[in-house]
Amino acid sequence: MTEETPVKKSNENVVFVGSKPVMNYVLAVVTQFNSGHKDVHIEARGRAISRAVDVAEIVRKRFMNELKINNIDIGTEELKSKEDENVNVSTIKISLMN
Amino acid sequence: MTEETPVKKSNENVVFVGSKPVMNYVLAVVTQFNSGHKDVHIEARGRAISRAVDVAEIVRKRFMNELKINNIDIGTEELKSKEDENVNVSTIKISLMN
Repeated sequence: MTEETPVKKSNENVVFVGSKPVMNYVLAVVTQFNSGHKDVHIEARGRAISRAVDVAEIVRKRFMNELKINNIDIGTEELKSKEDENVNVSTIKISLMN
Repeated sequence: MTEETPVKKSNENVVFVGSKPVMNYVLAVVTQFNSGHKDVHIEARGRAISRAVDVAEIVRKRFMNELKINNIDIGTEELKSKEDENVNVSTIKISLMN
């Protein structure tokens, strides 16, 4: 089962974008809206930020034209590397609203 | 001279982020503010979107703490590939304000 799960979820209406194919995340977002959520938050960090923007754009342009971008937030998270060094990673949160 | 130019500019207070090292663009943004601009726009498309967010975050956290994010816009641009196919590319515009 674990390998079939396309997208990690911590929260019902949050989709974390990582390194999987973009359509996995698009499907996850559309599913959240179809299950009745009025807003869905797309989150990513580091290189996945570009993919998160792709997800938001594909959902809006190809699947749900009526969606609005409610808010876009960028930030920085401090992570620990394997060598125990602090590494700053950029983050993005894109909130879509039905 | 062309090879020494670190960053393409079409407009005075716009910095286009591409595939160069992130600090080139950070320097370009800081320079724009230091030359008197009240707002600077960071633009990127495709994979460079992640780097554009890095640029905005590094400028804000490390160089100019007083800066505000005025606006963040995402969009889609239609490009022609070499094979004359239409390719959609995501874009981002981050507006920083002093």
